Amino acid sequence: MSSNDAFVELLSLSKSASKTLATATTATKNAALEDIALALEGAVPEIVAANERDLARGAANDIGEGLLDRLKLDEDRIRGLASAVREIIALPDPVGEVVRGSTLQNGITIQQTRVPFGVIGAIYEARPNVTVDIAALALKSGNAAVLRGGSAAEESNRVLVRLMQEAIRRVGISPWAVQTIDEYGREGAARLMRARGLVDVLIPRGSAGLIATVVNESTVPVIETGAGIVHVYIDATADEAMAHAIAVNAKTHRPSVCNSAETLLIHRDAAKRMLPSVLDALSLRGVALLGDERARGAGATGVATDETWATEHLDLEMGVRVVDSLDEAIAHIDTYSTKHTETIVTNDFANAERFLAEVDSAVVMVNASTRFTDGGEFGFGAEVGISTQKMHARGPMGLAELTSTKWLVRGTGQIR
Amino acid sequence: MSSNDAFVELLSLSKSASKTLATATTATKNAALEDIALALEGAVPEIVAANERDLARGAANDIGEGLLDRLKLDEDRIRGLASAVREIIALPDPVGEVVRGSTLQNGITIQQTRVPFGVIGAIYEARPNVTVDIAALALKSGNAAVLRGGSAAEESNRVLVRLMQEAIRRVGISPWAVQTIDEYGREGAARLMRARGLVDVLIPRGSAGLIATVVNESTVPVIETGAGIVHVYIDATADEAMAHAIAVNAKTHRPSVCNSAETLLIHRDAAKRMLPSVLDALSLRGVALLGDERARGAGATGVATDETWATEHLDLEMGVRVVDSLDEAIAHIDTYSTKHTETIVTNDFANAERFLAEVDSAVVMVNASTRFTDGGEFGFGAEVGISTQKMHARGPMGLAELTSTKWLVRGTGQIR
Repeated sequence: MSSNDAFVELLSLSKSASKTLATATTATKNAALEDIALALEGAVPEIVAANERDLARGAANDIGEGLLDRLKLDEDRIRGLASAVREIIALPDPVGEVVRGSTLQNGITIQQTRVPFGVIGAIYEARPNVTVDIAALALKSGNAAVLRGGSAAEESNRVLVRLMQEAIRRVGISPWAVQTIDEYGREGAARLMRARGLVDVLIPRGSAGLIATVVNESTVPVIETGAGIVHVYIDATADEAMAHAIAVNAKTHRPSVCNSAETLLIHRDAAKRMLPSVLDALSLRGVALLGDERARGAGATGVATDETWATEHLDLEMGVRVVDSLDEAIAHIDTYSTKHTETIVTNDFANAERFLAEVDSAVVMVNASTRFTDGGEFGFGAEVGISTQKMHARGPMGLAELTSTKWLVRGTGQIR
Repeated sequence: MSSNDAFVELLSLSKSASKTLATATTATKNAALEDIALALEGAVPEIVAANERDLARGAANDIGEGLLDRLKLDEDRIRGLASAVREIIALPDPVGEVVRGSTLQNGITIQQTRVPFGVIGAIYEARPNVTVDIAALALKSGNAAVLRGGSAAEESNRVLVRLMQEAIRRVGISPWAVQTIDEYGREGAARLMRARGLVDVLIPRGSAGLIATVVNESTVPVIETGAGIVHVYIDATADEAMAHAIAVNAKTHRPSVCNSAETLLIHRDAAKRMLPSVLDALSLRGVALLGDERARGAGATGVATDETWATEHLDLEMGVRVVDSLDEAIAHIDTYSTKHTETIVTNDFANAERFLAEVDSAVVMVNASTRFTDGGEFGFGAEVGISTQKMHARGPMGLAELTSTKWLVRGTGQIR
């Protein structure tokens, strides 16, 4: 990249903005967020008009009902976005928190202190709500945000970013603290991924394909918010009512989200006792059941293949497999899980502890619905995403996961 | 990669070994480490013989005195390695530590618990001591280690790995928990960097070029232990004796390591008071001084160029620049620092706090020598390296930085 390149200049403006934002007070950042919420509420017709142009283009391009629904912003959704911004105001500011500290024997004090990353890049698709979401979370954690929201939502995103820039400028924060690079198209996304030194961390949100591309192409460190092929395992000693409740809740409470179950594993002893009734309960809720041979004997109507186990359905569809042992269940999870969340339903203490110790996922549960893997449920307030990687952040992410740390060292002239 | 590929199979063996190692007790891991220390002490002649073959090949290939010295293992150094392993035994085991936890309103308990990464890959050059170092640190933190130590140290590394494999096998840990892929040459290093899913984290150790290659090529998450272009800034109000002591100590105490200073910045007011005597003190210790115009007027004999400011000398060589303000000092650091460590010598409270807040490095100091940026000095015990990245770990890394976390969730049948 040559230094007088317009794209590099744009990212350099974000970098500069991030430096002043890093030392902005919580009061200033909260004032900016309140101004953003007001700006969104005050510009409903303008946002809706821009969004309608995106929707019309999407319909003309036949992008599909699901995508059109994700793309849509009506008055209710815009007010919802403003409320989400106000919820972020209420969260504690992570910046400046002293994570640990001590006084060394020579009298030097050391303090590991939370600081913003600097510039957060976000790459996502056809979700204008993410534009506001990520920008607000970045702002509260003292980071500048560079957004690549994709061509499908381009007009909506342009209006949203301009409204946010105007709002933060009013409280004295550089408008470059929030910007979109949508005008640079795919080339912009590719360059964002290689902008090491100007962008401190990249967060991809969207399809497995998009996330894989970012992970493979990026030289900027990535926080992967991955897909969820989530398992419910009903162990031999499981309580029947509890197994029903957890299987049904994990699958049907909100099937389109990543913490919903995709596969039901059940020990053969439990299968004898309860599999027909469990499958009945799932069928009654409209779940299409793809079973292995034994599960088909107990009421699953479809045929499960290796592909079934490896698919995140995000829909009322579920694979069902009968296993001969806890080991077989753990081995199945080890093969097919995306390492998001798994739960065991059991009354066997040793099996519960083995499952907790041996299953290598971000969240491992005993006797609870996988739907609890969620920043809000965990008490973090905001929903930054759920990390399925092992570095930096794992599982539900709060504002603290959008920060790094820095060691502050104070001495009185000490040398070695 | 096809699944019957020998290289993939090798990494799969590491992955399997990592699973049993993840639940090994601290006592077992410590017994393995003690056995490794004994094995090293008991095989001095064998290690020295292998090392001499590496040294002879290195000398024939004219790799240079510095590299030959790093490559060399004599009896003293081997006993030093064994002592370092015993120091790791004495450190607390990070695995199983509950980082945070709570009971949710519905009675579910959640515990964020330290777990090993799984498989740690290390890529380094001509440093057989790193072979033992990384393997022992990985073992203590419950991780399998896959080592790519480079062709220059190939024979030494092969013996060291075999001794460690025999030692850990004796305490019942799979020998695949430690292995080398040196026989696969450069191709092996390249494949290790793309072995996402089999290797959980990669740690490059060595030259800036090696680290840049790993960062650019790797799809496996990387912990960057970077170079140190470290700055000492003497502010207008600095105490003269303290400025002398810190500048001399930061530069000359051990010039070949990353926390040594490379550039001296000094405020023009302080320069008038003390620059000639500071430069004198440095010269007396043998430091070659490359100055800007004003520094040359005060005794620097060489000419500093932009390249001077951008070079990690790792030797008795130092750039010297007179600045007109704290802002100019911070701007210089912002341009040239590798974000490792910087220190200000000052008696001005507001300037000290501004320096701490605005300098974006892993460790920012007031009135202390940069040589204190060190895991041992910080009280972490082991020297895993010093991270210059912002994700996961920043600054001196202890054993905890070689772990991830996992959320353990226990319920009594809760659903949403």
